[in-house]
Amino acid sequence: MSNVVAAMSISVDGFVGASDPEQWFPVHNRVHDWVFELAAWRERQGMTGGRTSVSSDLVAEEFAGTGAYVMGRSMFDFGEEPWGEEPPFHAPVFVVTHRKREPLHRVGTTFTFVTEGLESAVEQAADAAGERDVFVSGGASIVQQAIAAGLLDELHLHQVPVLLGAGVRLWDHIGTGWKELEPTRITPGDGVTHLYYRFPR
Amino acid sequence: MSNVVAAMSISVDGFVGASDPEQWFPVHNRVHDWVFELAAWRERQGMTGGRTSVSSDLVAEEFAGTGAYVMGRSMFDFGEEPWGEEPPFHAPVFVVTHRKREPLHRVGTTFTFVTEGLESAVEQAADAAGERDVFVSGGASIVQQAIAAGLLDELHLHQVPVLLGAGVRLWDHIGTGWKELEPTRITPGDGVTHLYYRFPR
Repeated sequence: MSNVVAAMSISVDGFVGASDPEQWFPVHNRVHDWVFELAAWRERQGMTGGRTSVSSDLVAEEFAGTGAYVMGRSMFDFGEEPWGEEPPFHAPVFVVTHRKREPLHRVGTTFTFVTEGLESAVEQAADAAGERDVFVSGGASIVQQAIAAGLLDELHLHQVPVLLGAGVRLWDHIGTGWKELEPTRITPGDGVTHLYYRFPR
Repeated sequence: MSNVVAAMSISVDGFVGASDPEQWFPVHNRVHDWVFELAAWRERQGMTGGRTSVSSDLVAEEFAGTGAYVMGRSMFDFGEEPWGEEPPFHAPVFVVTHRKREPLHRVGTTFTFVTEGLESAVEQAADAAGERDVFVSGGASIVQQAIAAGLLDELHLHQVPVLLGAGVRLWDHIGTGWKELEPTRITPGDGVTHLYYRFPR
């Protein structure tokens, strides 16, 4: 049975990106830079080298465990060009969007555009993923919707040791009912702290 | 040299209390209930028994390491009666307030009311603490002010595995400059996750 997993790189104060467009690039880098030099990340981008560490092992595990991805349309729009002919997913990707579009075939990946909403995208991804996990890639809005709708089995927080003081909060719009979690892995990493939680079924 | 330490029990989504008065009690309990059954906590309240665990050890370490406390006036007002003749501090307490008041002597504790602001309260507490730490007890507003003013050396987050979705956020009003942190202890606990960070000097 596949799990639905979301993973976010997040500051200690809960920010996952900038709300001020001029801060977009520096905040994006500060929140994600822990991953860029990891061997597992570099390998997935077609590069060699990089650091091996518990963090690299966890990233490798996330890649290996994922059978399909779900992402928001903004994230797709942002990535479509830089990802190029061989995007780093190597699995089907389901893009939640209001605009109908034919599937986009790339090396190792097909992007399917789902106009019936997030829940439908997660269902289609689960069918495609088989025994492996559905990975909700982001952005923040899609992860918030997935939490609010109770669609997630696991939430992996890669907590970066900084207080940013401003930006896009992951913890807005997640619904007001209490949602209990179970910690499944709490691990100091390589420039980051890995906090894995499970939503009890 | 004493450190200035703040410790907060906090939900995964960054809430430390309720903003809706009707939710005050349930939220307070959900965020703090990990501590109430710990042996170290019970001992400090003059009770016996309770659970021993890494969490109890860390609470004992916080008590033992603290030479003086700083708190906000709301926290003091809330606690004055229930703390009774022998408050659980066993060290001098400095209350940040706008109202002048004579020191209040209790068994093991003197409450000193500081009208010159938080920074002065922290200085007076540091003088009283000697080699031990100054512990900023809360509430949220005082901890926010201490973060914004750069007064803290350490921030101990006792992260409770729940998403509350609403309430008083610790991560408001902490200033907009980035503040880098160093993780010093990342430990799964007893119904809680302990995330200790240091502000580099």
